Amino acid sequence: MRFFSDNAAPACPAVMAALIEANRQDTAYDGDAWSKRLDAAFSALFGADVAVLWVPTGTAANALALAALCPPHGAVFCHREAHIQVDECGAPEFYTHGAKLLLLEGEGAKLTPDAIEAAAAAIRDDVHQVQPHAISITNATEAGRVYTPDEVAAIGRVANARGLGFHMDGARFANAVAHLGCTPAALTVEAGVDALSFGFVKNGGMSAEALVFFRPDLAAATRYRRKRAGHLQSKGRYLAAQLLAMLEDDVWLANARAANAGAALIAGAAGGRLVEPVEANEVFLTLTADEAATLRAKGFDFYDWGVGQARFVTAWDQGEAAVRPLADAIAAL
Amino acid sequence: MRFFSDNAAPACPAVMAALIEANRQDTAYDGDAWSKRLDAAFSALFGADVAVLWVPTGTAANALALAALCPPHGAVFCHREAHIQVDECGAPEFYTHGAKLLLLEGEGAKLTPDAIEAAAAAIRDDVHQVQPHAISITNATEAGRVYTPDEVAAIGRVANARGLGFHMDGARFANAVAHLGCTPAALTVEAGVDALSFGFVKNGGMSAEALVFFRPDLAAATRYRRKRAGHLQSKGRYLAAQLLAMLEDDVWLANARAANAGAALIAGAAGGRLVEPVEANEVFLTLTADEAATLRAKGFDFYDWGVGQARFVTAWDQGEAAVRPLADAIAAL
Amino acid sequence: MRFFSDNAAPACPAVMAALIEANRQDTAYDGDAWSKRLDAAFSALFGADVAVLWVPTGTAANALALAALCPPHGAVFCHREAHIQVDECGAPEFYTHGAKLLLLEGEGAKLTPDAIEAAAAAIRDDVHQVQPHAISITNATEAGRVYTPDEVAAIGRVANARGLGFHMDGARFANAVAHLGCTPAALTVEAGVDALSFGFVKNGGMSAEALVFFRPDLAAATRYRRKRAGHLQSKGRYLAAQLLAMLEDDVWLANARAANAGAALIAGAAGGRLVEPVEANEVFLTLTADEAATLRAKGFDFYDWGVGQARFVTAWDQGEAAVRPLADAIAAL
Amino acid sequence: MRFFSDNAAPACPAVMAALIEANRQDTAYDGDAWSKRLDAAFSALFGADVAVLWVPTGTAANALALAALCPPHGAVFCHREAHIQVDECGAPEFYTHGAKLLLLEGEGAKLTPDAIEAAAAAIRDDVHQVQPHAISITNATEAGRVYTPDEVAAIGRVANARGLGFHMDGARFANAVAHLGCTPAALTVEAGVDALSFGFVKNGGMSAEALVFFRPDLAAATRYRRKRAGHLQSKGRYLAAQLLAMLEDDVWLANARAANAGAALIAGAAGGRLVEPVEANEVFLTLTADEAATLRAKGFDFYDWGVGQARFVTAWDQGEAAVRPLADAIAAL
Repeated sequence: MRFFSDNAAPACPAVMAALIEANRQDTAYDGDAWSKRLDAAFSALFGADVAVLWVPTGTAANALALAALCPPHGAVFCHREAHIQVDECGAPEFYTHGAKLLLLEGEGAKLTPDAIEAAAAAIRDDVHQVQPHAISITNATEAGRVYTPDEVAAIGRVANARGLGFHMDGARFANAVAHLGCTPAALTVEAGVDALSFGFVKNGGMSAEALVFFRPDLAAATRYRRKRAGHLQSKGRYLAAQLLAMLEDDVWLANARAANAGAALIAGAAGGRLVEPVEANEVFLTLTADEAATLRAKGFDFYDWGVGQARFVTAWDQGEAAVRPLADAIAAL
Repeated sequence: MRFFSDNAAPACPAVMAALIEANRQDTAYDGDAWSKRLDAAFSALFGADVAVLWVPTGTAANALALAALCPPHGAVFCHREAHIQVDECGAPEFYTHGAKLLLLEGEGAKLTPDAIEAAAAAIRDDVHQVQPHAISITNATEAGRVYTPDEVAAIGRVANARGLGFHMDGARFANAVAHLGCTPAALTVEAGVDALSFGFVKNGGMSAEALVFFRPDLAAATRYRRKRAGHLQSKGRYLAAQLLAMLEDDVWLANARAANAGAALIAGAAGGRLVEPVEANEVFLTLTADEAATLRAKGFDFYDWGVGQARFVTAWDQGEAAVRPLADAIAAL
Repeated sequence: MRFFSDNAAPACPAVMAALIEANRQDTAYDGDAWSKRLDAAFSALFGADVAVLWVPTGTAANALALAALCPPHGAVFCHREAHIQVDECGAPEFYTHGAKLLLLEGEGAKLTPDAIEAAAAAIRDDVHQVQPHAISITNATEAGRVYTPDEVAAIGRVANARGLGFHMDGARFANAVAHLGCTPAALTVEAGVDALSFGFVKNGGMSAEALVFFRPDLAAATRYRRKRAGHLQSKGRYLAAQLLAMLEDDVWLANARAANAGAALIAGAAGGRLVEPVEANEVFLTLTADEAATLRAKGFDFYDWGVGQARFVTAWDQGEAAVRPLADAIAAL
Repeated sequence: MRFFSDNAAPACPAVMAALIEANRQDTAYDGDAWSKRLDAAFSALFGADVAVLWVPTGTAANALALAALCPPHGAVFCHREAHIQVDECGAPEFYTHGAKLLLLEGEGAKLTPDAIEAAAAAIRDDVHQVQPHAISITNATEAGRVYTPDEVAAIGRVANARGLGFHMDGARFANAVAHLGCTPAALTVEAGVDALSFGFVKNGGMSAEALVFFRPDLAAATRYRRKRAGHLQSKGRYLAAQLLAMLEDDVWLANARAANAGAALIAGAAGGRLVEPVEANEVFLTLTADEAATLRAKGFDFYDWGVGQARFVTAWDQGEAAVRPLADAIAAL
């Protein structure tokens, strides 16, 4: 069984049903009935007036968000391990036309207000230095950790005080919300976030992510950028339908809870092996090469993570029952 | 019934079946079983060693192809009405980092070797002028016309003699092949084409186009550009599966033949109203405002096309039977 | 004697004297005493509050101006023969990150309000088409013609009504002002121009042009773009000193008058050979190959200009006396 | 007296004389007699076939060099304190269209082969990560330190083994050569350097730097990029003349020796205050706020450098005699 990425999971039943239901003639691009319902559906979820664009990948959502918040001659603060820095092949630089990512340290792949303030203070206010225009955080983080609403709000206050845009990469936003038990709004719009890459693909979608602007004015130019980037799919209704299906009956939250529960079960079995507290659906363990081989011999697939460590990721369809064999195998090491 | 775009059509049964079949766990991005079969499947179709990348839109395919063929300081010859110039919001300029499209005239939205030669000859060979690096043609064209293999090959010889890359926007490539009855190879690799945007979405796909490189070496850098543009979907198997389903049993050709047949039926009914010969699945008619209103009152949806003209596009599910009511209505005007 | 370009001329005495005078220690970049005087000096000239940046070339001035007025996903209306389209190797596309130049026709290389309105009206207001954000005109034009204040103001009203930025490429702005006898303000700020590339190099400078913003707010981001483009010279005082020297005692105007007078003398000798009315310092003549050879045999250097035509350009040091031999030789053909 | 930057110095007599000498009519851009002599003059200096382009700033030279060595989707290794990272407002990102600078640590602002190897080894060879394409070092470094020919060659071997381009930012290359007493070739072409930004402005020039390609094939596309960036000055002879004047009679080396001697004198007076060994023309000292105030009260101008430190830079006209008062004042603290 595969635990190397939640991207490996299939699409969930609600999404497949929605695709079949949407498989009929309608207006092209985002003029269709499904796309037109998006703003209202997400505004209801967040209790705020938001503008939403579907895109097929988190990379596209992140890069479009950053382009909306930072000019070509500007910079974005992010963590050294941020997905936008490490795993997007320079998409932020492409979409922003060459803005700089300024890399900060922080435990659990989390930024702190202090780290941002210190970095900002070290930049001379002259034309020789690239000036910061935005902050980007990932929630849940690349280390499987979760920012609380208070932590996000503290960064939001720094952003506000310094006139910086505030982006959240929420590839696993659902897992963060599920872990915290808070509202989606508490973690975003109420904490000063301007734009959220709301991930659905890792959480049971097939090919649709939501780029949510809490400042709806940012959406206008972004619609041009989306088209210009080749992301305005001509049969966009299939993306919109996926998102609506995930919102309906809180499928997104149920899926995330299942994945989190699977991860928690592994964590419980791992005990002292845990490298990071497990707060979402990723588990980082210390594991010797022999132990890793033992697990793989039993049919479990996962990534080595640096030397002597391994990463296990659970998906929406890998709740407690599906994960128990792995948990047992880890406990038996 | 809608005739304003083949983008309005649903996905065809083979594609929907393939998506359901592909809905299981597999490796992420393009490491899955379906994606790995693409090069072989398209190489078989073209009788040549090709490299293929899936992307979700024709705009992405076109822009990636041009970026592979033209540096930022170069230029691409295309027709004044080319989709890359008129309808992609500057995607070629985005992906090429600012290359110029040099616009040529030509009947039926077709370029001719003479027009290209004349334009190329007028460019001084110095650093003050942007130098041409590529030619892009659309087949079938934006006017619903079709380049024959001989016509393509004549342009291919110009490209070769001048050291220019040669791209074909084949959003309706299937319709062109269906009209001509030639092999796909005759219209591309045998005629000197370097890169083809092979359209599937308008022809019954849901969200997958194929960017085909007849010079496979061009694919390596393009794979980085695709990721960098946010087009490397994490569940790429759903795109690859669509393409494979369309190739199998020549679904792509059957679908195109059906659409062409529908267009031909309309053309037959239109008689002297035809603005352009109908060679694919688009029909351009002269139509007064009153006549257009009459058709719309009967439930037919289509685009006005300039003053006193209208465009009707048929899709894979709008063959002769589906289109007959429209043909009858036009004949009755 | 050379008449192929006013770029061939040396720097004028006032400029050389200023360089020698400025050759002492001062603060780097644009913090020096000369650079700090620029805004006031140009504001006095234009009778308006302007912000001025020195740059070494007209291409840099033009491209920075367009980047200030047009986003990457936008377009700029200009004449088909505009220097920004024909002779800058894509600098506008580089600095704007891929904006499109939309090419219009017009007699004497001049745009008209009607041509702009017609082109703007033909652009659909949707995300598939690049939307216009600016207009750029050249004064004097690439054909040696001059827009009057009324003509500029008419275009300025179109710009204002449509919310478009308005840029003037004034590589030969001095020659236009000298021809018209109007104030610099009448031709720019009073006519709705937002940014002027005020050329000095062709008019007796060595290496400094002035980018003048009549909307001073546009200068802030441009200062970053200038640095980012490598145009913030570390010893900027030498550029500022050139500009100040040219403004003092209206050297810029005297130089332009001299060049215009030289061109007028040629024009008088040319009679029916004139292809364009001579309104600045460029003369376009019909000339057979034999006649061209005759002139060249007498030591006159100039460009062929298409078939059967030639271009002669006079510089600040080619007033009536210097040009008389050429005028006589042309009259004698 | 100013010691905050060698940019504050005037142009040296040889340069001023050359400008006056060049102040006559000649062909525009780089077709003039001076520009045409550049390749030969620098090839003689380096004992190798080089291609040379003049540009007005080190930022332009650096950014053009990097654009020649690294594609938009690539990365450049450099030191965390490199000028290209810290003081060029993102010029490398602008010219490369968004390549990434990967920042390494190293004593004295110097890279080591080990640091580069370690960073390269940590990058996964897949499309998700930006792949390294070039290395850039600064000699003399931003800390006033000098790489020896052996040190450069060791990095050159890494570049060669990994297929990376190798750029040297030589804003103070002359000072490095003067310090080492080696040939310019030993520090560059013989050590595997592909492109050198050879600085002249800090060393007595007015407005000309040389971008030297030891792989002359890299120059062709760069000529287009230079024009496209607005750096092809129309009266380019004034830049070429400066460079030639500096090469003649080794003015560049004499100037650098003078500046280095001045710095050495300060270093001798500073004793234990030295933060870095003084190997070129920059001196970094520990200095209390009171001590700094004492020096400034005596008329010495310099930059604070972090907390409790200061930087003094000597120029070509600040040799031992000119600097003695400062040295005495420091000794007297």
